[in-house]
Amino acid sequence: MDLTEHWISSEVIASGGMLTVRRDLVRLQNGHTSNREYVMHPGAVAVVPILPNGHVVLERQFRYPLHQVFIELPAGKIDAGEDVLVTGQRELLEETGYTATEWIKLGHQYPCIGYSNEIIHMYLARGLQAGPHQRDEDESLEVFEASYADCLSMIQNGQITDGKTIVALLLAEQYLQKTSV
Amino acid sequence: MDLTEHWISSEVIASGGMLTVRRDLVRLQNGHTSNREYVMHPGAVAVVPILPNGHVVLERQFRYPLHQVFIELPAGKIDAGEDVLVTGQRELLEETGYTATEWIKLGHQYPCIGYSNEIIHMYLARGLQAGPHQRDEDESLEVFEASYADCLSMIQNGQITDGKTIVALLLAEQYLQKTSV
Repeated sequence: MDLTEHWISSEVIASGGMLTVRRDLVRLQNGHTSNREYVMHPGAVAVVPILPNGHVVLERQFRYPLHQVFIELPAGKIDAGEDVLVTGQRELLEETGYTATEWIKLGHQYPCIGYSNEIIHMYLARGLQAGPHQRDEDESLEVFEASYADCLSMIQNGQITDGKTIVALLLAEQYLQKTSV
Repeated sequence: MDLTEHWISSEVIASGGMLTVRRDLVRLQNGHTSNREYVMHPGAVAVVPILPNGHVVLERQFRYPLHQVFIELPAGKIDAGEDVLVTGQRELLEETGYTATEWIKLGHQYPCIGYSNEIIHMYLARGLQAGPHQRDEDESLEVFEASYADCLSMIQNGQITDGKTIVALLLAEQYLQKTSV
């Protein structure tokens, strides 16, 4: 069964600020036409930073759309033309001050397939070395550490509810279990 | 450390179609002001439907923003004033034709905390009975079944990359392991 929807035309319905939103006219498989509206996103990278003692470096960050503080992994948008590994290294350094000697690609996820073209690449980072963070003065977040067991508990008891963080932590855990013989 | 950002004013920068996008002016903790743009979303419900043989009911659906077919759990938006359990039951029936006698709340996730206020409530559904689906003719999706082991493999090998589906499958697996003594 071919499920493809075919592009006919596009218009930008919001732009100039942080978000660009497009509306495309598409042709469906049954011959009808429909509109598809979605956020244009440059893609992002999320990092699971593992300390020598096995703990994970996490952040607390206020997220305005939901008016609450979330527990999250270090993550950020890909700059134009930037290699995704470089994005991960840059975001980890900027937000937490850590550099890492070992970077393992965990895969990618799509957080919001209904109305955004965002992709999130995921890395495990090991061999961490602490240093000064490079957060700008409008970036308000706290960095802390938690054991992997505590991370999994926080997912189960609803203290961690950020989708990208749950996916990356669980994929990292599977990788760690598979490779620790 | 108080990370809260305080609302000053709002404007709608896109509306009329499917997506409503707001821009709020906010006051940061350091006294500066900034803009926050985000999609206004009514919330959604995702369902993990488990057949008597332990298999999961999944869907293949073309998602236009990424121009690809995704493997997903049944899910959909909450109608105005609708109870979230009713949303789950309605979406499962409409998309797959199944009704279920047992509904277990798994928690909730936020797929896109940077630029959307969407929440996704998650349910496990058991005691499934097949019936005719109620998809409208513009809704193009395929329903299929997979064992739980195959679901976990598809997450690990990158065949399932939809964030909400990965989170809900992994939370359901933890629930099933905890309750199967």
